[in-house]
Amino acid sequence: MKQENKSLPPAFLDSLEKRFTGTFSLSQAVRERHGGGEGYYPPQAPDAVLFARNEADVMDAVRLCHDSLVPVIAYGAGTSVEDQLQATRGGLSIDLSGMNRILDVRPGDLDCTVEAGVTRLQLNSYLRDTGLFFPIDPGADATLGGMAATGASGTNAVRYGTMRENVLGLKAVTAAGEVIRTGTRARKSSAGYDLTRLLIGSEGTLAIITELHLRLYGIPETMRAAVCAFGDLKGAVDTVIAIIQTGIPIARIELLDDVMMQAVSQYSKLDYPASQTLFFEFHGSPRSVQEQVELSENIALEKGGRDFQWAARAEDRNRLWQARHDAAYAAKALRPGGLFWSTDVCVPISRLAECILETKEDLRKSPVPAPIVGHVGDGNFHVLFVLDPENPDELRTAKQLNERLVARAIAMDGTSTGEHGVGLAKRRALQDQFDPATLGVMRRLKEALDPAAILNPDKILFNG
Amino acid sequence: MKQENKSLPPAFLDSLEKRFTGTFSLSQAVRERHGGGEGYYPPQAPDAVLFARNEADVMDAVRLCHDSLVPVIAYGAGTSVEDQLQATRGGLSIDLSGMNRILDVRPGDLDCTVEAGVTRLQLNSYLRDTGLFFPIDPGADATLGGMAATGASGTNAVRYGTMRENVLGLKAVTAAGEVIRTGTRARKSSAGYDLTRLLIGSEGTLAIITELHLRLYGIPETMRAAVCAFGDLKGAVDTVIAIIQTGIPIARIELLDDVMMQAVSQYSKLDYPASQTLFFEFHGSPRSVQEQVELSENIALEKGGRDFQWAARAEDRNRLWQARHDAAYAAKALRPGGLFWSTDVCVPISRLAECILETKEDLRKSPVPAPIVGHVGDGNFHVLFVLDPENPDELRTAKQLNERLVARAIAMDGTSTGEHGVGLAKRRALQDQFDPATLGVMRRLKEALDPAAILNPDKILFNG
Repeated sequence: MKQENKSLPPAFLDSLEKRFTGTFSLSQAVRERHGGGEGYYPPQAPDAVLFARNEADVMDAVRLCHDSLVPVIAYGAGTSVEDQLQATRGGLSIDLSGMNRILDVRPGDLDCTVEAGVTRLQLNSYLRDTGLFFPIDPGADATLGGMAATGASGTNAVRYGTMRENVLGLKAVTAAGEVIRTGTRARKSSAGYDLTRLLIGSEGTLAIITELHLRLYGIPETMRAAVCAFGDLKGAVDTVIAIIQTGIPIARIELLDDVMMQAVSQYSKLDYPASQTLFFEFHGSPRSVQEQVELSENIALEKGGRDFQWAARAEDRNRLWQARHDAAYAAKALRPGGLFWSTDVCVPISRLAECILETKEDLRKSPVPAPIVGHVGDGNFHVLFVLDPENPDELRTAKQLNERLVARAIAMDGTSTGEHGVGLAKRRALQDQFDPATLGVMRRLKEALDPAAILNPDKILFNG
Repeated sequence: MKQENKSLPPAFLDSLEKRFTGTFSLSQAVRERHGGGEGYYPPQAPDAVLFARNEADVMDAVRLCHDSLVPVIAYGAGTSVEDQLQATRGGLSIDLSGMNRILDVRPGDLDCTVEAGVTRLQLNSYLRDTGLFFPIDPGADATLGGMAATGASGTNAVRYGTMRENVLGLKAVTAAGEVIRTGTRARKSSAGYDLTRLLIGSEGTLAIITELHLRLYGIPETMRAAVCAFGDLKGAVDTVIAIIQTGIPIARIELLDDVMMQAVSQYSKLDYPASQTLFFEFHGSPRSVQEQVELSENIALEKGGRDFQWAARAEDRNRLWQARHDAAYAAKALRPGGLFWSTDVCVPISRLAECILETKEDLRKSPVPAPIVGHVGDGNFHVLFVLDPENPDELRTAKQLNERLVARAIAMDGTSTGEHGVGLAKRRALQDQFDPATLGVMRRLKEALDPAAILNPDKILFNG
């Protein structure tokens, strides 16, 4: 990685000082904290950090960067797991976490408008009294702007979709410091190019998202959750495949392999066996949930499931899903001080068993602890490597395992990343996934919207 | 509209002749038939029509056009209702209707791969024995490539989404004649820019779609349909709003106003009163459908609905929905030889009653027959103008009514088109809907992907 442009032009710094007195920082600690997310990639600090308070701050800061050709990187909660935040060429990090106002909630339209720095838990806590919720739930309490920028999803995607299906419109600041408004609040539109979806998953390389119109959902009348252990991984994955193919509108169906279950049980002080395990959740009317439960339980038992543990009470259900959301932390706890790396792929559901079993076999041969956990209803799963930072061999091994995993997913008509994004480390995977003509179109889009390449340089595309 | 470049360069014509002997036409009748869709806009014939048989034909034809700066317009079934097919600058129309092979159906993944010229009825007829169906159903039997290019939807969108949510990936030919492959067959992906959604709704101005991966759904175990008449329009629309806000997973909910019902009853020889009417359809398990039916019927009766007529038998249901799909033809039959123009807008559901009632009031004052019909569960509705072609006053009146309708929808945070697209005539509406910075981004995308502006010129953007 080149380390060009590592110090800011004095005139730029003067203008920054003049416009943003008191709201930006040059401190090393602050800069370093803004140089990476929760991935394994070494942090690379920006030269300065601006704590944006509003859209005008973002506009003015980007304009200054634009005029001085200074790189600019949007920062939310710092929870990304690829390497979307590394300031490879220095520049300005714009921290949007202070832009956390919930601007409007419209229960009648089942939608809301929030600033980009609002986090998913903040929104759901705010919504509590309305009977509504926002379903997208990556493990961490990410900002909604960050979640849109990486195309995040989570455990509810099998029923409610990803950010792509749940963002109605955006406000964003372009590389030239102009504000654009994409989409509308209507549920569908054929009016012009779909800039909303273009920005979702663009990882801050095409514009900086400042505001979002989001879809909301009524909290289901009934929710039931369950855990079911399986004698083998194939039985668990085949259960998932059969449930999806049967068309049961399951809300969540998550796989945790034996290694993951042991880690989760330890970390969350739960009493589950260290088996291949599925976590289920069903949403709907009492009758509909009952029906889904019966169908799913039958399928699971047929495929070798045992030990169905139901959690109908809210507190049991929350405890269960908290354990699931803490999976990454549980994996980290397998090796305190370890280097944590969560990779993800997604394949068509018919290939899921094959993909997971081959991956598991591959992992079994390696000495690196690497639990598997996944949003398997979407065909999406993660391998969580927990590496000895003192042992470069382990990182090398993990990289090879990851390369083989990505190649396997692509060969199965799948994708190199289902929800984490590309960042720096998956750029090579993107080259393998798409042909040069398709990558060429992506590059032309980047050049068209950010001709000076100041927006989150080097992410997604090489030399982008 | 400028009429430049109306005759083809002789060298281009020679190359066309050499490469495509027997599969292209210069005949006036063929050219005229390819110069427009089902909208009111006068046709503008291309200079030649190529009947593409495969992707290589499209690639080679676009390359020839690219080298000679000849405009190129993709043509499917010719059923678009905005003016997406007019050859404003002449050029080559590529008719893709011959590329109608269903390449693969994968029941285990609930997806399929088709060539762009496959129509929606052809696909569903092919799927009949698999227990699967493809839900997107604009009125006409459009090609799936054309449906993607306009971002089409239809009566099932409230439950199953639009083309945007149901296309997993695409193959397309760029302005330079290169083939790109967007998306994957995985259910979700965060790998690079979302070129799939960028091409959906781009109306052939960014690339020519040649192949699609589509999501499929299991045919529901139970389907029930009903018709319910209302004393007033407000009661009907309030029923829709309450059903959506209650979260009932209704599969279809369509509004036909009194004028439309009269036309439909006449045309389809049905015995319905000329009232404000809702058409319902419920999908699911027997228990779930029963529950949805009870809840919806209660809401409708509370809001002044009467005369519930249930159609549980497949033949009654098909007759009902055939009548609904024939609404456009029924409207046309109000005035044989009339000029037909279907405009559409979409608003947030909470504004739907207000938007429809104001529109109805506006229409009442005009002498032009103009039934209203809509996919109201999405907040989407159409006004079908049926104009006397000999009377330019009527067209002028309809244009004013349409302008007011679009302005009303935009003022309500809605969109100038929910599913028909922009074409030529809604370009002004697009300017009103988006600010110059946002339109500027759309223009830069167009310039980046089609620098010589050969792909369907003048559509979506002025001078695009």
